[in-house]
Amino acid sequence: MAGLMNDRFLKACRREAVDCTPVWFMRQAGRYMQEYQAVRAKHSILEVCKTPELAAQVTLQPIERFPLDAAIIFADILLPLEPMGISLEFVESEGPVIRNPVRDRASVEHLRVIDGDELNYVGEAIRLACGALAGRVPLIGFAGAPFTLASYAIEGGGSRHYLETKQFMYRDPEAWHRLMDKLARVVTGYLRRQIRAGAQAVQLFDSWVGCLSPGDYAEYVLPHVQLIFDGLKREQVPLIHFGTGTAALLRLMREAGGDVIGVDWRVPLDEAWEMIGHDVAIQGNLDPVALFAPLHEIERRVEDILRRAAGRPGHIFNLGHGILPNTPVERVAAVVDLVHKLSQR
Amino acid sequence: MAGLMNDRFLKACRREAVDCTPVWFMRQAGRYMQEYQAVRAKHSILEVCKTPELAAQVTLQPIERFPLDAAIIFADILLPLEPMGISLEFVESEGPVIRNPVRDRASVEHLRVIDGDELNYVGEAIRLACGALAGRVPLIGFAGAPFTLASYAIEGGGSRHYLETKQFMYRDPEAWHRLMDKLARVVTGYLRRQIRAGAQAVQLFDSWVGCLSPGDYAEYVLPHVQLIFDGLKREQVPLIHFGTGTAALLRLMREAGGDVIGVDWRVPLDEAWEMIGHDVAIQGNLDPVALFAPLHEIERRVEDILRRAAGRPGHIFNLGHGILPNTPVERVAAVVDLVHKLSQR
Repeated sequence: MAGLMNDRFLKACRREAVDCTPVWFMRQAGRYMQEYQAVRAKHSILEVCKTPELAAQVTLQPIERFPLDAAIIFADILLPLEPMGISLEFVESEGPVIRNPVRDRASVEHLRVIDGDELNYVGEAIRLACGALAGRVPLIGFAGAPFTLASYAIEGGGSRHYLETKQFMYRDPEAWHRLMDKLARVVTGYLRRQIRAGAQAVQLFDSWVGCLSPGDYAEYVLPHVQLIFDGLKREQVPLIHFGTGTAALLRLMREAGGDVIGVDWRVPLDEAWEMIGHDVAIQGNLDPVALFAPLHEIERRVEDILRRAAGRPGHIFNLGHGILPNTPVERVAAVVDLVHKLSQR
Repeated sequence: MAGLMNDRFLKACRREAVDCTPVWFMRQAGRYMQEYQAVRAKHSILEVCKTPELAAQVTLQPIERFPLDAAIIFADILLPLEPMGISLEFVESEGPVIRNPVRDRASVEHLRVIDGDELNYVGEAIRLACGALAGRVPLIGFAGAPFTLASYAIEGGGSRHYLETKQFMYRDPEAWHRLMDKLARVVTGYLRRQIRAGAQAVQLFDSWVGCLSPGDYAEYVLPHVQLIFDGLKREQVPLIHFGTGTAALLRLMREAGGDVIGVDWRVPLDEAWEMIGHDVAIQGNLDPVALFAPLHEIERRVEDILRRAAGRPGHIFNLGHGILPNTPVERVAAVVDLVHKLSQR
């Protein structure tokens, strides 16, 4: 980490003592910032992702504006699906749409286990962002986890009940495991390339895994997530494992792997940390909607989370999910300052 | 309970020994049944709800078809909002739509705390359904819980992030509590009338409360739910308290009240029962999507739930949420039989 001016985030990931609690936000480069909107007015999401200069520029925007302790590369969790053979569009107000969803064994067989060359634009964006950051803060790389990727690939977009996904899982477990294995191998290679391009930590987003029972998670998901974390261990960078609605899955997620477990606001931070064990770090867990609350309410909530972290090394402050589009920018600034101020050792 | 031929459900609610585990399904009268579709082809949801003969007819449909252990009156959780002054429409494929959402203190003040006369059609449907059931199984009444009702009233329909609801809560807690208090009073009176019309148990649906942190639940929701359960205690019928995504809320929900706590599939039944305590009954918790699985998978899941219930008195088998529209009817039949067969004492 030669030349890193702010290593609070990396230290906390390794559960080392820090001067104050590090903070960053999922989707910190996003629609709530005018700077981001200005870029998006001229370019689609996929254009921004695939143009390293633009992706790096957008990655830096929140760092220029707030004293955050980490940057996260701008990308989309679904990018690896495209070179695997799944068409990907972003439809205004609808989100990602996949016109050739994976619904049978044959489509699973056709998916290509890419080696990652096709996603070189992300590596290039990471190199550019690292250069522009010039050691101010570390850069986080990321990928979607196999279950969350599979849910988009099978449903053809976002979902409410995950009916197609679970049916696939229950009706053809063999094809399901084949699909998850392909996704896990692609994700492992993709994250390894991000690390080698300069990412100083990586986060695995299993955003929708909370729709599963612990039994289904253990059987249909855990081994594939484990493959990823095992495959990345020797890369020697902190690995973050994140999901939402995971109050009853935390022990299993921890078993699957990760140096840091990300939790949402539905579970109190101290109870979550107790469940995963104090020998891993924890990231979270302010409700993104709390950023729309009056300042005194926000302060009360930040204080509560820090109190539950109890000054124990290994807490990274974050939201429980991504920043919402219309979040007031000044509230984001306020939370960064509050976290730093209220957690000073 | 004179004249009740099957009292398994009521016994289980009171944690008394039963010959086998009782089973019923949320939304057991619904779109997956052709008999229901035939009625709905001629009548809107609101027409069915407001025509006691139709509501009673639809209530009986699943009872005629499956050996279920309880009937639940056909109605919609949002019905009480209408006479309170909130317009209510059901838009095809969109669900409930409210054109005059509650967004400020003045609209809260305008809401009428109705005494329930305006909902007499539900009481009448209950009387007719009881007559038609003729003691075959008990009839369950129900209402939406204040938070879930407030979320629809404020958002104007279903929601993903509950942004307006939580903002209202955070920005004007006084108006929020006023709204919740009005809803709680209306719901209490409404459920009392259902009991007096013949409902032998009632269920409070706090379907969307799982979007809250335990801290917010304790502060903004719990006291109002408590008011309802306290108000119904002397009615001497079992009270069921249901929510989804509640793995971290179960202790608080139990504190709020209910003789039976309903849990979804995201938390293992034995862990959930441990959390709420064995001095209350538990209802759940098969994933509704499991009904789309092959029979051997369904059997494995039913067995698992019964194994976790461990033959302890006080388990009512149900889904973790309502039956989904395209659920295969023969799978519903299979689960009823499996539960009865596999749980025989």
